[in-house]
Amino acid sequence: MASTVGQVMRRMASTAGQVIRCKAAVAWEAGKPLVIEEVEVAPPQAMEVRLRILFTSLCHTDVYFWEAKGQTPLFPRIFGHEAGAIVESVGEGVTDLKPGDHVLPVFTGECKECRQCKSEESNMCDLLRINTDRGVMLNDGKSRFSIRGQPIYHFVGTSTFSEYTVVHVGCAAKINPAAPLDKVCVLSCGISTGLGATLNVAKPKKGSSVAIFGLGAVGLAAAEGARISGASRIIGVDLNSNRFEEAKKFGVTEFVNPKDHDKPVHEVIAEMTNGGVDRSVECTGSISAMVSAFECVHDGWGVAVLVGVPNKDDAFKTHPMNILNERTLKGTFFGNYKPRSDLPSVVEKYMNKELELEKFITHEVPFSEINKAFEYMLSGASLRCIIRMDA
Amino acid sequence: MASTVGQVMRRMASTAGQVIRCKAAVAWEAGKPLVIEEVEVAPPQAMEVRLRILFTSLCHTDVYFWEAKGQTPLFPRIFGHEAGAIVESVGEGVTDLKPGDHVLPVFTGECKECRQCKSEESNMCDLLRINTDRGVMLNDGKSRFSIRGQPIYHFVGTSTFSEYTVVHVGCAAKINPAAPLDKVCVLSCGISTGLGATLNVAKPKKGSSVAIFGLGAVGLAAAEGARISGASRIIGVDLNSNRFEEAKKFGVTEFVNPKDHDKPVHEVIAEMTNGGVDRSVECTGSISAMVSAFECVHDGWGVAVLVGVPNKDDAFKTHPMNILNERTLKGTFFGNYKPRSDLPSVVEKYMNKELELEKFITHEVPFSEINKAFEYMLSGASLRCIIRMDA
Repeated sequence: MASTVGQVMRRMASTAGQVIRCKAAVAWEAGKPLVIEEVEVAPPQAMEVRLRILFTSLCHTDVYFWEAKGQTPLFPRIFGHEAGAIVESVGEGVTDLKPGDHVLPVFTGECKECRQCKSEESNMCDLLRINTDRGVMLNDGKSRFSIRGQPIYHFVGTSTFSEYTVVHVGCAAKINPAAPLDKVCVLSCGISTGLGATLNVAKPKKGSSVAIFGLGAVGLAAAEGARISGASRIIGVDLNSNRFEEAKKFGVTEFVNPKDHDKPVHEVIAEMTNGGVDRSVECTGSISAMVSAFECVHDGWGVAVLVGVPNKDDAFKTHPMNILNERTLKGTFFGNYKPRSDLPSVVEKYMNKELELEKFITHEVPFSEINKAFEYMLSGASLRCIIRMDA
Repeated sequence: MASTVGQVMRRMASTAGQVIRCKAAVAWEAGKPLVIEEVEVAPPQAMEVRLRILFTSLCHTDVYFWEAKGQTPLFPRIFGHEAGAIVESVGEGVTDLKPGDHVLPVFTGECKECRQCKSEESNMCDLLRINTDRGVMLNDGKSRFSIRGQPIYHFVGTSTFSEYTVVHVGCAAKINPAAPLDKVCVLSCGISTGLGATLNVAKPKKGSSVAIFGLGAVGLAAAEGARISGASRIIGVDLNSNRFEEAKKFGVTEFVNPKDHDKPVHEVIAEMTNGGVDRSVECTGSISAMVSAFECVHDGWGVAVLVGVPNKDDAFKTHPMNILNERTLKGTFFGNYKPRSDLPSVVEKYMNKELELEKFITHEVPFSEINKAFEYMLSGASLRCIIRMDA
């Protein structure tokens, strides 16, 4: 890594303030394979930074907006929002970052000035909160990417499927330069989302029981959070029984497939746990799973945390006595982590071996084969596939 | 008070172990005026205590079960569950209470042995949780009240509309004997319920905004909790605008009558507060108010607490994104107070003048005129009417 960084630094000294020509994987149309193109990346404007991406990984949200089913399509676009990067140059007014800093770009930001950023309880920055419809930079309403003068849209302010990208300074979390970027890049989104849902929101006590709905990467990260918290029973719920074996690595001790039971899954869990689990974390986005996740927690003290993003016409519906009986229902976004303030400490959890990241990384491809990462995810084969930009 | 207690103690010395004949207000039929009768009160059995009631007050729950609309009627019955009392005698195995102790009987108990009692987070005792259908004592499934051999049913384990009653030891909170029972008797139910919903569950910070739905006694107690917490804006919501003037005494600073607006009340509140209140407490039991109370809290940090008891066919329904955007929904029962462990400290809040109780007490009647208390409540004239047993 040291020599790679050295090379990058030498290259960077000559590129600051210049347009950079580099490779990017461009999505020209919804659902069609990405095409590696030579793009022009403009220098960062005020409060922006230009990043050299070393590693990026694929998350469901990229696939969801690439498929563009049910959303207004915005193409051509450069996807990608989980990455490990090095600052190449900084725009006017940027004081928190300098060339050479190691950062994780994040799809939602932290301006540190708004009411949300100033609240101890929130991470939903008013200025830089995720916006999936906007394909341009806030500063001038324009893209920093172009191909022969044609603008290429950004995605959630990160667009990491490019050798270089431009992000708002509030969307780049400076981390320990000793951290291996090919591992900690997965903390940019999904893994932190699941982990934080458990550690920051559900907060299970040592020895408690936790149900995790959905055993994809986010759910397994939520299970990892339960394991770190010392939960003694971690019940995984998934419609795919094949996932149980892998889930054991993440601390899952028991498994429920709702298809195997004639009764509602919250009743199955209540029977297994003498009335309900202490905590639950919902990571599928299915509305029926959300309701089950709430109804399966014990009265008196149970806390259910919703992570998965629902469809726009869904309605969450339960009998109000389920609430009155002292259950708590909470939603979380990005695991309640404030990107710049909190991500460095999550990286430290990995560095001190409290958090295991290797088990989330099931595949690796060179940038030229980025479409394989989409195939692995769509077939359910991968948890996280790392895309190496230099290969 | 001192001489009254002296008289009571002298009388009690001669009655321990005996059947006591005394006056009680008996509800013979649903919705019909109570009749003052001479009843026989059996001695307390194992883990029971017999109490001399000095003051009792009327709560909506008494009226609700007296009207018996939509529930299985259980008559003849002795209602009443808010009271100030003195222990007359104790049954076998009772070590925590002795004759002469001042107590507040409580409609829900604390056995101190079950999982719920052992949880720091819950007050929903498995053994002594409120049961409105049971009209008998747990020990032998029988009533301690009778008239010429005919059993008269208990109500929620308290039946305080009687000069003497028998309760489980877990349903009697021992309090400071210096506390005036004609004031602190209102802490047996409604006032503690509203106060605790704010102080123990919503936990508003100093300077925050709080919306209170329903400005009856419970809602005003929730407002009192917000006032004690140092909330700077307390927004009262009620369909009766006449309640605002009185509500000011309880710290309510602004008033919203949903009938005065063309838009949903949660939108009205969001406009008043730049996106929503920090906390809300729902004290009506109306399902639409519950949903509004949830949807009117600010994203990122808002907490909504449900107190009011819904109808059995109600459904709580909201768009799941309202939850995902980092709102919290919590239910509470009896303000999350553990009756025996926590009520003494609430009495102390009154004793040290942190909590004001006098403003809740709008009426007072002698026991012989107990039906007037029902009239005051049904007409909306009273918050709390104290019934003096010795008058």
